[in-house]
Amino acid sequence: MKKFLSASLLLTSLISFQISAQQLSIEQAVLQTGLYPVRPSFVWGGPAGGFLQVKNGLIISVQAKTSKESVILTRDEFNQILQASGLTAIQVLPLPEILPSGFFRFTVGSVIVDFDWNQKKLTGKFYIPEGSGNLNLAPSGTMAAYTIGQNVFITDHAGKRTSVTNDQERGIVNGQSVSRDEFGISTGLFWSPKGSLLAFYRKDERKVPEYPLVNITTTPATAGMIRYPMAGGPSEIIRVGIFNLFDGSTVFLDEQAFGDDRYMTNISWDPSENYLYAAVLNREQNHLLVNQYDAKNGRKIRTLFEESSEKYVEPLKGLIFNPNDPSQFIWFSQRDGFNHLYLYRTDGSLIRQLTQGEWVVTDFINWDNRGRYIYFRATDPSPLERHIYRLDLNSGAKLPLTPDPGTHDALISSDGRYVIDTYSSYSVPRRVLLREISAKESKAIFDAPNPLANLKMGEYRPFTIKAADKKTDLYGYLVLPPEMDPTKKYPVIVYVYGGPHAQLVLNTWLGGASGWQYYMAQQGYISMTLDNRGSEARGRDFEQVIHRNLGKAEMADQMEGINYLFSLPFVDSNRIGVHGWSYGAFMTTSLMLNYPDIFKVGVAGGPVTDWKYYEVMYGERYMDMPGENPEGYELSSTLPQVKNLRGRLMLIHGDNDPTVVWQNSLMFVRKCIDEGKLIDYMVYPQHPHNVRGKDRIHLMRTVTRYFQDHL
Amino acid sequence: MKKFLSASLLLTSLISFQISAQQLSIEQAVLQTGLYPVRPSFVWGGPAGGFLQVKNGLIISVQAKTSKESVILTRDEFNQILQASGLTAIQVLPLPEILPSGFFRFTVGSVIVDFDWNQKKLTGKFYIPEGSGNLNLAPSGTMAAYTIGQNVFITDHAGKRTSVTNDQERGIVNGQSVSRDEFGISTGLFWSPKGSLLAFYRKDERKVPEYPLVNITTTPATAGMIRYPMAGGPSEIIRVGIFNLFDGSTVFLDEQAFGDDRYMTNISWDPSENYLYAAVLNREQNHLLVNQYDAKNGRKIRTLFEESSEKYVEPLKGLIFNPNDPSQFIWFSQRDGFNHLYLYRTDGSLIRQLTQGEWVVTDFINWDNRGRYIYFRATDPSPLERHIYRLDLNSGAKLPLTPDPGTHDALISSDGRYVIDTYSSYSVPRRVLLREISAKESKAIFDAPNPLANLKMGEYRPFTIKAADKKTDLYGYLVLPPEMDPTKKYPVIVYVYGGPHAQLVLNTWLGGASGWQYYMAQQGYISMTLDNRGSEARGRDFEQVIHRNLGKAEMADQMEGINYLFSLPFVDSNRIGVHGWSYGAFMTTSLMLNYPDIFKVGVAGGPVTDWKYYEVMYGERYMDMPGENPEGYELSSTLPQVKNLRGRLMLIHGDNDPTVVWQNSLMFVRKCIDEGKLIDYMVYPQHPHNVRGKDRIHLMRTVTRYFQDHL
Repeated sequence: MKKFLSASLLLTSLISFQISAQQLSIEQAVLQTGLYPVRPSFVWGGPAGGFLQVKNGLIISVQAKTSKESVILTRDEFNQILQASGLTAIQVLPLPEILPSGFFRFTVGSVIVDFDWNQKKLTGKFYIPEGSGNLNLAPSGTMAAYTIGQNVFITDHAGKRTSVTNDQERGIVNGQSVSRDEFGISTGLFWSPKGSLLAFYRKDERKVPEYPLVNITTTPATAGMIRYPMAGGPSEIIRVGIFNLFDGSTVFLDEQAFGDDRYMTNISWDPSENYLYAAVLNREQNHLLVNQYDAKNGRKIRTLFEESSEKYVEPLKGLIFNPNDPSQFIWFSQRDGFNHLYLYRTDGSLIRQLTQGEWVVTDFINWDNRGRYIYFRATDPSPLERHIYRLDLNSGAKLPLTPDPGTHDALISSDGRYVIDTYSSYSVPRRVLLREISAKESKAIFDAPNPLANLKMGEYRPFTIKAADKKTDLYGYLVLPPEMDPTKKYPVIVYVYGGPHAQLVLNTWLGGASGWQYYMAQQGYISMTLDNRGSEARGRDFEQVIHRNLGKAEMADQMEGINYLFSLPFVDSNRIGVHGWSYGAFMTTSLMLNYPDIFKVGVAGGPVTDWKYYEVMYGERYMDMPGENPEGYELSSTLPQVKNLRGRLMLIHGDNDPTVVWQNSLMFVRKCIDEGKLIDYMVYPQHPHNVRGKDRIHLMRTVTRYFQDHL
Repeated sequence: MKKFLSASLLLTSLISFQISAQQLSIEQAVLQTGLYPVRPSFVWGGPAGGFLQVKNGLIISVQAKTSKESVILTRDEFNQILQASGLTAIQVLPLPEILPSGFFRFTVGSVIVDFDWNQKKLTGKFYIPEGSGNLNLAPSGTMAAYTIGQNVFITDHAGKRTSVTNDQERGIVNGQSVSRDEFGISTGLFWSPKGSLLAFYRKDERKVPEYPLVNITTTPATAGMIRYPMAGGPSEIIRVGIFNLFDGSTVFLDEQAFGDDRYMTNISWDPSENYLYAAVLNREQNHLLVNQYDAKNGRKIRTLFEESSEKYVEPLKGLIFNPNDPSQFIWFSQRDGFNHLYLYRTDGSLIRQLTQGEWVVTDFINWDNRGRYIYFRATDPSPLERHIYRLDLNSGAKLPLTPDPGTHDALISSDGRYVIDTYSSYSVPRRVLLREISAKESKAIFDAPNPLANLKMGEYRPFTIKAADKKTDLYGYLVLPPEMDPTKKYPVIVYVYGGPHAQLVLNTWLGGASGWQYYMAQQGYISMTLDNRGSEARGRDFEQVIHRNLGKAEMADQMEGINYLFSLPFVDSNRIGVHGWSYGAFMTTSLMLNYPDIFKVGVAGGPVTDWKYYEVMYGERYMDMPGENPEGYELSSTLPQVKNLRGRLMLIHGDNDPTVVWQNSLMFVRKCIDEGKLIDYMVYPQHPHNVRGKDRIHLMRTVTRYFQDHL
């Protein structure tokens, strides 16, 4: 074998020598090193009418009108100021956060400093308390709320600490995100606009079962327990507290609707601080109340409005108040079938629907400082793209701000005169345009060279086909091997996700394809990816067709993708592989088992194998509880299908996966053994739901080798 | 792919049709169905001068002298007797246990019945208490000791239950085997000869760390905790109690030697019941005291003798008393380099060494009822065989009773006149001889036909080579493909165990080779197995060369096996695989990493990957503690060697392995990921250290496919 290996190494070296400049390495492909251009950052701020950027280690102000640049701060200058205050110097000057006062905010090690760029002096220092998490500075910047363990604390500028909660019992958690980060929840601390009150989540998970995650790095191994609410089982009980900084009292929102299992989300403060709003959703997730509470005593004042659905309602964004009229706010809803903006009064009356059409608003950007215009990001005119619009609230006129095809992000100047438009597309690696909204022309302030100029990349070929319903357009792409010979037959790897809240096909640089897909193209494998029904940004019904039957419509659509592949003369229909992670691994496994005569090889990472092993919040939204939908759970489960396995299937799992628990793939393996089906397996020890960092290279080498061995 | 599969299925069917009568199926190979003949059972008992066997559902007595058979009991007859006593009928009449009274003992469902075969009536019934474990009947048969949970109970014939222990604290366990079944320990309850006293183990494992074994069959999964004393860490504290049935008192042996970490093993009662004996071993396992205690108060009377070693002393058998002289007992020791029998007086004086020579006594069979002869099993004249000997204690004359080559088991009649000799060898599937010891001739009472007559089996070819020390003989075998063409080159799979207390090469039916090795021979793979130094039945120094350096001598010897392979013209030296389980998996992994230019493919199941993850009792015997032998632990660990991995290596583990904990292979995988080495993995969910039953077929299909894919 020694001789054989040496010979093969020699061969590899020769090939590398000839084509190294054109070939992606697996490391480069997985880490995507050098595949994307740098992304310059900007922020509106500094001298009036200008924006800031970091250039050559300096903070530069650029005048929007004249493009005149001036240095606002150098690293050395800033370090002198820091050190004069007893703080340690920084290595790299970052772009600051701009405070309402116009001052800059930087995090320097464990200290948050506010900086008057004009006077060149520190206006505030806040030492991040040791052992704290979820730090959240009050709007004033003079105090911060944070958590230590299961409790909430507030520390003021002088370092004086106040306990907001003082729970000791295991399973009571304050101030942290709840509902496993569903419903747009990402924090558990909410400062009132003036910083007089602090709203916080209190999660009672004493009845939520514990799931063991084993730490093998101790000797012997030890079991760490996480709370994991499993579909149909006991869940968290959520309450919202309001702490009053003046008298130290706490009240809890007095909400009785829907019983203990209610979700309380989209926590929003009224600009007056007198009211707190929450979206209250029943456990079934099909009935939503948007409620106003009295911040003084927690009493419910009124339900502003309700939304309900035969399938599910999914509130993801809080109330967005009009800066010039605190009685008005915007609410996101897909009640008309597409996610649009609605203007409400705080008495619950609907002023009007602001946007409309067969496209969705993906992001609210901001309200101009006079309250006349709003800026948002939407899928109009194509779901493959993202464009920025300005809506005139007076006239209802919708002005597109980003005419170039592609996927745009924007920063609007506070006076609403300028937009910094950063975008990319199939053909544009990254371009940043500065545009005066009233003018016709924009000016490129950054234009990235093609980072792939020296690489022989596969061809990205977008396609559109009809869904299995024969009417809905689906978007997909192929990545074809460089210099593909169309008279030959090539194997195909379908890369799939397929679940809600994700869109893989976009008019953006590399078109949403991963570096690994381009790598595999260079190894002679075609990649195919298709956004099936259920995926993101196509409206309510496009997504909700999956309700109670996860996998069914998604698979039917993916098979339309397979039909498309089979119509291509250069596709080897006997060599179709499939790969996906998480929901994509559920899809991969389901496709392998439901279409064993089509798929020869599959690799499924972090797979849900039966939705009964998945969490309450996400799982029950789409599947209801196991007891409410036994047929749906049975039909979507991969376990009863194991008997159909014919191809080579590898399951991969992180042994500390707190999202899709390990039980999923282990039970699948057990079922395979029981059914006498051979299966391949790989574990990434001590990894959570995704394998990231350096180990991801190993992961994708494993996946690659598996396809090379068997496809 | 459908087409391809169909074609390949067709092909398989054709081949099966032609050669099915000659080919082993994988199921047959793994379960070894039909590879071995039935093994008839016998027991001396019944009418004087006869033995019993079950034939056609009847218990038959055979007169040794005349071979005359008579029916002692029929199933129907026995069932009538059972049912008359309110017991349920049995399906199959088993061979009974013969009590000192000559009565038969049967277990019928959950009842133990004693039966007077002469009077045809039940003489005793004992109902096994529900939920009990470790049931141990007193010699009288009128009462039984057993455990429920962590405590010991006694129940008499009338069903009256007495608590022997009453511990409630977690981590205190009474009446169960201790020291993880090392030192020959297999029970925790020891009745005194007359049944007046009950000795029992009390294990305090409160300080022993818990290791989590996750049960994935609950929803959600739950962690079961086992106590796992890891090398160098806190261990069990063992005490021996004696419960007095007359006054209900308990005393504990008052032993202070060697501190809390002492082992107390080989618990033996004096025939008088006045004394209890125990072998007391220090944690280092190199200093042994054989102590006599007063059964009344637990006080130590004397240390009879001591044994010590620079490496280790391993007491495995208790004191065996002379039935005709209770002041004499036999003790096993390998103090002269080989395991031999020593005759002692209970005052500690050595009468004499009974056996001697460069062979070992493997089993004591019995003492004849006059105390003149002892019968034992030994490796004389060849370690590949087991023969039965009679030793005349008066003259010292050693009489061989089993002249035929092979591996013998024997039952000696209580008067010492007859021996039933059951044996097999390379050429004898199974033969049972009845021999009158004083006569020259024996008579075959069972001779199995060759069960493999219709199978085209590979050739078993034993060989002898020199160990890496260039002087010690090592024994091995090859299994060669049927109809091998010696002008061609064949791949080889080395099947290895290599650890102490195991011997894989024996002159027995199939020669110690597994059905799977013969199966692989039919698939065109040569198998090679070699018992390296460290393995069983070759004497102290042959085994103890491994001390503090596990793997080193073992690998050196296995590489001598590889050299032997390379000397054979029909071996393809570029296609060498290796497979083993447990210690054999440690060896497999070590060989793959230490000889990456030799071994192309390895499969390691339930591997120890670093001895620091192994248990105190076994691990420290061979390796000392990690702190005492850091170099040995480092050199024997597979983890630092991962960087050498070049071939294809698959690790397999049961996720509930309580012996070689899962941490071993998971840490290995983690190290592979860290070093960028690709590795294959398979888990057998909910399986312990070995995959048994039907799932073993899946296991061996997985192993087979791996070699077929890659070797």
